[in-house]
Amino acid sequence: MTPLARELEQLLAPGDRLLDPADCWTYGADNSKLHAVPDAVAFPRDADMVRELVRLCRRLGVALTSRGRGTGTTGAAVPDHGGLVVSFEHMNRILEVDPDNRWLIAEPGATNGEIQQAAGATGFFWPPDPTSSAYCTLGGNLAYNSAGPHAVKYGTPRDNTLGLSGVAGTGEAFRTGVHTTKGVVGYDLTRLLIGSEGTLAVLTEATLRLTPKPEATRLIQAVYRDVGAAARAVSRLMARAEVPSALEFMDHSAITMIRAYAPDCPLPAAAGAILMIETDGTEAGIEATTAGIRRAAEGEGCVQTLSADTPAEAQALWAVRKALSPALRTVAPKKINEDVVVPVSRIPDLIAGLDRLAAEHAIKIVNFGHAGNGNIHVNLLVNPDDPAELAAAERCLDGVFTLVLSLGGTLSGEHGIGLVKRPYISRELDPVALGLMAGIKRTFDPDNILNPGKAPGPA
Amino acid sequence: MTPLARELEQLLAPGDRLLDPADCWTYGADNSKLHAVPDAVAFPRDADMVRELVRLCRRLGVALTSRGRGTGTTGAAVPDHGGLVVSFEHMNRILEVDPDNRWLIAEPGATNGEIQQAAGATGFFWPPDPTSSAYCTLGGNLAYNSAGPHAVKYGTPRDNTLGLSGVAGTGEAFRTGVHTTKGVVGYDLTRLLIGSEGTLAVLTEATLRLTPKPEATRLIQAVYRDVGAAARAVSRLMARAEVPSALEFMDHSAITMIRAYAPDCPLPAAAGAILMIETDGTEAGIEATTAGIRRAAEGEGCVQTLSADTPAEAQALWAVRKALSPALRTVAPKKINEDVVVPVSRIPDLIAGLDRLAAEHAIKIVNFGHAGNGNIHVNLLVNPDDPAELAAAERCLDGVFTLVLSLGGTLSGEHGIGLVKRPYISRELDPVALGLMAGIKRTFDPDNILNPGKAPGPA
Ligand SMILES: Cc1cc2nc3c(=O)[nH]c(=O)nc-3n(C[C@H](O)[C@H](O)[C@H](O)COP(=O)(O)OP(=O)(O)OC[C@H]3O[C@@H](n4cnc5c(N)ncnc54)[C@H](O)[C@@H]3O)c2cc1C
Ligand SMILES: Cc1cc2nc3c(=O)[nH]c(=O)nc-3n(C[C@H](O)[C@H](O)[C@H](O)COP(=O)(O)OP(=O)(O)OC[C@H]3O[C@@H](n4cnc5c(N)ncnc54)[C@H](O)[C@@H]3O)c2cc1C
Repeated sequence: MTPLARELEQLLAPGDRLLDPADCWTYGADNSKLHAVPDAVAFPRDADMVRELVRLCRRLGVALTSRGRGTGTTGAAVPDHGGLVVSFEHMNRILEVDPDNRWLIAEPGATNGEIQQAAGATGFFWPPDPTSSAYCTLGGNLAYNSAGPHAVKYGTPRDNTLGLSGVAGTGEAFRTGVHTTKGVVGYDLTRLLIGSEGTLAVLTEATLRLTPKPEATRLIQAVYRDVGAAARAVSRLMARAEVPSALEFMDHSAITMIRAYAPDCPLPAAAGAILMIETDGTEAGIEATTAGIRRAAEGEGCVQTLSADTPAEAQALWAVRKALSPALRTVAPKKINEDVVVPVSRIPDLIAGLDRLAAEHAIKIVNFGHAGNGNIHVNLLVNPDDPAELAAAERCLDGVFTLVLSLGGTLSGEHGIGLVKRPYISRELDPVALGLMAGIKRTFDPDNILNPGKAPGPA
Repeated sequence: MTPLARELEQLLAPGDRLLDPADCWTYGADNSKLHAVPDAVAFPRDADMVRELVRLCRRLGVALTSRGRGTGTTGAAVPDHGGLVVSFEHMNRILEVDPDNRWLIAEPGATNGEIQQAAGATGFFWPPDPTSSAYCTLGGNLAYNSAGPHAVKYGTPRDNTLGLSGVAGTGEAFRTGVHTTKGVVGYDLTRLLIGSEGTLAVLTEATLRLTPKPEATRLIQAVYRDVGAAARAVSRLMARAEVPSALEFMDHSAITMIRAYAPDCPLPAAAGAILMIETDGTEAGIEATTAGIRRAAEGEGCVQTLSADTPAEAQALWAVRKALSPALRTVAPKKINEDVVVPVSRIPDLIAGLDRLAAEHAIKIVNFGHAGNGNIHVNLLVNPDDPAELAAAERCLDGVFTLVLSLGGTLSGEHGIGLVKRPYISRELDPVALGLMAGIKRTFDPDNILNPGKAPGPA
């Protein structure tokens, strides 16, 4: 038995720990498909126990990897340094919902879906809405700054979190932030922790800022001749005071996939790009809002717009977008999914550059995503059993990142760095900024025990 | 001649420096009325020169205090450690306005008003709007995270800044952030620098996120029987999906002042609290939006609501609020102005507690401010020539801070810590969080030369 296992036996009830490697196995992977077996898994029930676990790992000099539900796509929850995985399955309570002050306090193990449900019961929602909402946790959402389609209007966790409690790598518990929407006393540790991928502190509680649910929503599907026309429509839409509540994009290669997979999908022959545009507002105002947004979507290069006034009609319009995931799976067993971001006006340059890279490396690339933020999911479709194709995909990916940075973009909009993107971060961040981040890491976690080797932290 | 003066003579053209103490005098104060004469003042023209100045100060071991226009109220720009003041009068260019991507890039010496003008020319605005807009600088706005009435809907600088350039106390230049509205590569240094009061880095450039100007605005004045009724109306207003674009508050003591100073001001006899509610939206939607917000403002304890449909009518309604500043000046030559924040639902408890403190210490207290954020300006009116009253005010202020913290609030919503609030921060921030902030300060500024002794930095 390792010293870690021996001490965990003392510290935790049998139901609150796993020590057998076979049991620990499933806590070693995330959706990146990387895997490493931890030495032990702990399921703390409160912040005091989290503090004890951090102190123990620090004393023994072993790594501590925080874990939500392992739905992350970049390996940030993979315990590749071994040691202890801390899983928050037993710390998943919604502690308080305060509609008068628009906040919700929860433990990190609550799923995004549970938070939406608790907020929804009082007429509110928490804007971050990854597609994985039903299975991913608040802790994972905060650590990755995860978001979804509604970020274009409502922002990411950094815009929707008031305060946090956590335990630093020193083993000390602390609080950040305020219960109010304004506050300038001290440095902004709240936002510093959000997006830090568990490398600075283990989060034990969060106070989230809630937003009232809109009374009404509408959906518009706008079809364009080509990507350039769609991107110019995005600029027109984003220049209006009333921002769409979602503004999703599919390029010509995505449309080709959908056509092949679902030939009945009703799409005009001239379709070279599609925008799915959601609007929201009051019952009294929604028609005028939607009409204004629809007018902005129309214009040069727009083939048609369709709008859905009922949930059934909306479902029919979404069917086109929903056909994409199964279509992609049919075409290629493996997709390398990058979530790059470029300034909205550079989307046409991005897509044109990706077309060039696809031809050059003979790799199929399909693009869709959150156009209003310029956050495009670039999918390289490859056969994992073909080493030559895998190698070509690696070279192609390199070209994708070079392209994105040359357009003033960033390598990740929501999936983070984890293990997968670490080789690329020094291309985006300047060495002085990286040095400052390393100093911050040393301040919070002097012995480098929290998620070592993830995000911008040292190996 | 000091070594600093000698080296500045070499480094800078005569028009870019002040060495004579008489000339330096005016660069020693801000609106806190604290004052300390710096040894020299430099007016750099670009980021390279800023870097040279930081390196020089580091080499000589003298303090470097960044300065906007000295309109801050807490002394953060006062060079109480002597040394060099760096003023950004010659670095005030608007470098780029990009309406397609909704950003504006500017140097720190540009005034908030100049930024609004440049953004406005393309139909946009930058949401942070302190009342001092015409004279305060972008650098000051970012360093204090300053905001104004529109923060309730549009947020503070932390919500409206995409990226920064700066020089750390090490003398190294670096960039933070992205040009896009999403990005999770590395720790969030952008928000860490915003609100850090010049203690971590000297800012040399900022990329600001712009918001389209609303097509239409309306104003409602709502009069309540008492503060409790007004605060409950604030909760009702903040629970709606359509947030007012401004939601300003005046309490009964403010109304009493206005009545005494401007007896012609048309206010119902039963007025115990007033809300000034601004709405904005599209031409097509503004009437419905305003009607909905007005209905929410009405209800239990509401004496009357008036709405302005024309600029002239709006001006008439604002006249009540505008009478307050001269009224306060008439009553007392000195006002101690605190900008505390409490959760919106605790505003009645705050005002009741302040009434008790006013009676207990025989100090007049007048309250108004940004109700939608719970950000209340608490004004203690005192005669600076009466030492007993000044001492009573100090004790009273102590009670104010205790009250605010007991209500889950924070000591400052927008004016910051500077020198004035330093004695109180350890009441709000826990010692572990303060220790982490000290570590961050050491990382950015190992020799403690940048604004030493301000904000949470070491003395
Ligand atoms: C089908 C599917 C759809 C998805 N859609 C989206 C999407 O639309 N948008 C999007 O952004 N992402 C999406 N994702 C990615 C993923 O769901 C999110 O990143 C999610 O936030 C991860 O949550 P998790 O609980 O699974 O965290 P994990 O993957 O377990 O962990 C993620 C990170 O959080 C850290 N962490 C977890 N808990 C804590 C804690 N208490 N303290 C400190 N650190 C902690 C981990 O150490 C790790 O660094 C999707 C994934 C899948 C599988
Ligand atoms: C009449 C009046 C009304 C006001 N109304 C409001 C209001 O509504 N809301 C509000 O929030 N405030 C308000 N204020 C306070 C003040 O105007 C703001 O805090 C403003 O942002 C300060 O800007 P400044 O250029 O004067 O900065 P200064 O006071 O000169 O400096 C403020 C801080 O910024 C730092 N700084 C300046 N430039 C840089 C740089 N380039 N790099 C790093 N640090 C830098 C300084 O070191 C200091 O810490 C008001 C003040 C007055 C006098």
